[in-house]
This record gives sequence, structure tokens and C-alpha cells, in this order.
Amino acid sequence: MTEFGFIEQIAARFAALPANGFEGIGDDCAVLPIGNREALLFTTDLLTEGVHFLRAATSARELGRKSLAVNLSDVAAMGGRPVATLLSLSLPVDTTDDWAVEFMEGYRELSERFGVALVGGDTTRSDSSIVINVTAIGRAETSHIKRRSDARAGDTIFVSGELGASGAGLADLLAGRYDTPLAAIHRNPQPQVAEGLWLGTRPEVHAMMDLSDGLASDIRHLLERSHCGAELDTERIPCAAGADLRQAVCGGEDYKLLLTADAAHSEQLAADYRARFGAPLYAVGRITDGGGLVWRENGRPIAPSWHGFRHFD
Amino acid sequence: MTEFGFIEQIAARFAALPANGFEGIGDDCAVLPIGNREALLFTTDLLTEGVHFLRAATSARELGRKSLAVNLSDVAAMGGRPVATLLSLSLPVDTTDDWAVEFMEGYRELSERFGVALVGGDTTRSDSSIVINVTAIGRAETSHIKRRSDARAGDTIFVSGELGASGAGLADLLAGRYDTPLAAIHRNPQPQVAEGLWLGTRPEVHAMMDLSDGLASDIRHLLERSHCGAELDTERIPCAAGADLRQAVCGGEDYKLLLTADAAHSEQLAADYRARFGAPLYAVGRITDGGGLVWRENGRPIAPSWHGFRHFD
Repeated sequence: MTEFGFIEQIAARFAALPANGFEGIGDDCAVLPIGNREALLFTTDLLTEGVHFLRAATSARELGRKSLAVNLSDVAAMGGRPVATLLSLSLPVDTTDDWAVEFMEGYRELSERFGVALVGGDTTRSDSSIVINVTAIGRAETSHIKRRSDARAGDTIFVSGELGASGAGLADLLAGRYDTPLAAIHRNPQPQVAEGLWLGTRPEVHAMMDLSDGLASDIRHLLERSHCGAELDTERIPCAAGADLRQAVCGGEDYKLLLTADAAHSEQLAADYRARFGAPLYAVGRITDGGGLVWRENGRPIAPSWHGFRHFD
Repeated sequence: MTEFGFIEQIAARFAALPANGFEGIGDDCAVLPIGNREALLFTTDLLTEGVHFLRAATSARELGRKSLAVNLSDVAAMGGRPVATLLSLSLPVDTTDDWAVEFMEGYRELSERFGVALVGGDTTRSDSSIVINVTAIGRAETSHIKRRSDARAGDTIFVSGELGASGAGLADLLAGRYDTPLAAIHRNPQPQVAEGLWLGTRPEVHAMMDLSDGLASDIRHLLERSHCGAELDTERIPCAAGADLRQAVCGGEDYKLLLTADAAHSEQLAADYRARFGAPLYAVGRITDGGGLVWRENGRPIAPSWHGFRHFD
């Protein structure tokens, strides 16, 4: 059973329950309006050893940072400010105290960098592998929240950074090359918290999500939720140094932002973004009324066999 | 490293971070006031196969219910109403689709019974055992929230139900007797959501928490947080049918409530509770100014070697 198939089953099974003020499943975070034009955002991610990481290929400190980073990215992707997390940690008996302390130090480092409190958690013994679950809570003005469902035909599609470095780094790790710069990028994702917050304030930004499974996979979720199609220009996709186009499109865990913006204001948006962050927003395509997802190479439609990212399975 | 030792280390390490409006670690839930005399409550629990449950000894449906129940109990223990959960599920490849569907059906059953929405989650493959993490979100009037830290000298100590059935059921399970009534109780905890909400409205109730690790262990956390001592009368501890006193005191996972109340109003409280729920509140002792925890048997101090509950390790 695929993850998305299972989630669809879950959603159907729980649709009859009261929403209690929450917006339903389908975005990077759940949304709870709390009055005074504010809302809280909630997201959770489970990382398991052997599937999401290899203990030999990452330091405890890096893993502590990464466990938090992937959740902060989900909050940023909706235009929210992360404020707190709850951390569950299941450690096998062969994990040392030093490992646990280093893990927490990494978690603390990134919490401090983004001003996020740790407000709860659970620690247990595991009889097999390391398991980490983080729930992140964000806060946003309701008018700043961006969803996957708000892309409109004609929108420019942007990505907020170069892609593929994490995927290329994963290829290094899988080949046993743990010490390459790309492998380090894979182990140390940088959530675009300030960028997401800033993009949240811009009304010309319509839809937004983070790139965790790879552009080829993530764009499909955005299109499904927005009931739109898209054309993507492969020659405009920014490949990170050391990554090829396939890694940029199919590699996961880049944790850059994918967004769509009103075409009439997208040049100004990109200029303002560059002025604010000293880095470009990359226009990689446009939203269409329908017709599914079309990849183009210098204007000609192509039919690549690209699919989303899978972890160590 | 014990769980509580580790949590203390964590708390110290994160104390310098901004609280962002949250009350710190130490109660059954974190508390976030959201204005209009309301607050949100947050709790998380991680269940791992082989430590918290044995796959052969529980049905998937029971496990679905239990994963949710233990979190609802934490919300109830603070006087809150559970409103939503996020569920992370890591399943090994030898878990069948039927197992996953049954698990979700159990989770849905209890969600429906308590009117709780499922607002997010994560499903992944596991390379070893089943792992379940639930984060529950509750809502409460700020004046109704009960904490561990508010016990006062002279308070009557109550428990909200008979104890030990779950511990006795665990003994059955560990002996390979899966089909006994006590084993069924262990697998099917009933969170006292209505009871916790009602007790939250009563100002004479000072401190409250749920009994997850066993009275002998849980009372110590309450006393530490309240800077008090206590006398407990062993002959007044309500042992469930089939359970002995040791199981009632040391067995975990009963998920009844432990509370302290102003002695001047505690008879009225117990009478009102009985009128409302058709069941007694059991007075088992009193809070003292200091002197630690004293167990008494018919008035005489005794020195039992009782300790808290541990799971399958």
C-alpha cells in the first residue's frame, strides 16, 4: 500500500467525524483558526532508521537537526512561523547516552536558530531501530496562509532554490561515500522559514508547498488539489552543482519551496525576493487550465519517465 | 538512561529557548493560552512494538483504539476536551493491508466516540517493528485547567476508579494468557474524558493527572511538582477484581485520574461525582506539608518496596 493510497483511505474513513474547527488533511499542515485573524498550524513527521536515515551515515547531531528541519519546512511552506514542537524518541538499548545527548544538542541548535520551543515529548526504549517523531506547531495570520489548492490557470510556477543536491547526496550515501559535500547537504536540510513567512505576506503568491518528495511528485499533489494542469520547462529547472536534471526533478528532500504566483506580478515578486534574500526565485513553468502535467524541453513536449522520490527502500 | 532522567536533561537543555506563550514541560499536556479565556493542550505518545505492545497479544483494532485512548487520557487529566489528533504510523512490510485497515477502524471508532478529528499524519515503512505516534490537541477554558503542581497540604487525594486490572491483565499476557477478561482490560483502556472535563469545572479540585505509570510512581511526580508530601492509606486503595494491592499500586496503564481536592469540599465533590457518573471517587489519602510519601496500613506507617510500572522491558 503506498503512502498516498493509505492517506486517501484514512481521509475517507474519517470524513464523517466533526472537524472541530480544523481544516482537513491535504496540505503541509492542518490549520486551526483561533480568532483575532490568527491560526495555528500543525504537522507531524516520523523518521525511522533504515528507511529515512542510516545510523552509520549520519551523526546524531545532524539527525537531531534534520528531524526538526523537515517539520519547520512544512510550517514555512504554508507561510507560518514555527513556534513549538513535541518530540518523541524511541532508542534501542545499543544507543549510547552520548548519542542521545548529541541528538538533543542538534535539535536544540536548530530550535534556537528559529526561536522554537520544545513543549512536550515522549522517550521510550525501542527493541530494534531508532524512531523519531516530531510534531511542529506554527502560527500565522489567516490571510497569509498559503495552500496547495489555490493555484490558478496562468500562474507562474517558481521554486525557491536549486534542486537535486540532496538527491545527489543520497546517491553518494547509498554508494558508501559519506564524506562528500553533497552527502552533507542531504544530511543537513535548511528549512526556508524566513522565505516562507515572507512569501506568505505576498498576496500575488497563490499556492505553496515544500519540495520533500521531488518536483515531479510534489507538483502533482499541488495540481490535484488545485484542479489545474501545468507546463514545466526543463531547461529552466535550476540544478544544483553536482546534480543532474533527473536528480533535480526526482530527488527528494531538497526542502525548497514550490509556489505559484499571479503572472502579472511575478517579475516584481522575484525582484523583491532577490532584494530581500539575495537569491533568485526560479520561474520553471506555468499553471494551465487542464491537460495534466506537461514537461517541455526548449518548448517541445517531452515524455520523461520521472517519478517521485523514495527513501532507502 | 531512564525516561525521566532524560526528560530532565532535555528540559535543562531547552530552558533558554523562548517559550512562545507555552507553559513548560512537566504536566500531562503543554498549555497554550489563545485568548478569550481559552487554551489549547498538546500531548504526544509513542508506542513501539515489543515495548508497549506485542503484536500477537493484541488485535489491530484494539491497538488502534489504545493508541488514541492513552493520549485522550492525558487531555482529560488536565480538564480539557480532546478535539483533534495527528497520527504517525510506521509499518513493517510484513504488516498486511487488512491489519492497517483494522488499526484505522479502531482509531476511528474511538475518535467518533469522543468527537475527535484526525487532522494530520504520516505513514512510512518500517524495517523492523510497528511504531505508532499520536499527538492529541485539546481545548479548555483556562480556569478549568488542572495541573500536577497545584496540590496543597490538607487536600484529600482521590482516584477515579478501581486500580490494578490493567497490571493484572499484563501479567496474564506475559504468561501467554491472551484471552482473559483482565488481559482484555489491559488492551482496551477507557480514557475518562467526561470525568476529566467535569472535574475541571470544579474549583475545589486542585491538582490532577492520569494514572499511566502506576499510583506509586505517578503520585511522586505530583508531589515533586507541588512541593508537598502525602500519606496514602493502603486499605482504602480500590483494587479491581482479580488484581492484588501490588498490581493496584505498581501496575500501570489503568488510565484512571489521580486528583487532590480541598478537604472541606471533598465529601460534596465525591457525592456530586457519584450523582453525575454513577461511580465513586475513592479517597485514598491526604497531601501533607512535607515528609515525602508515606504509605499507611490501618494507620500504621509501612515501608513497601513499591516502584512504578515498566512496559515489556
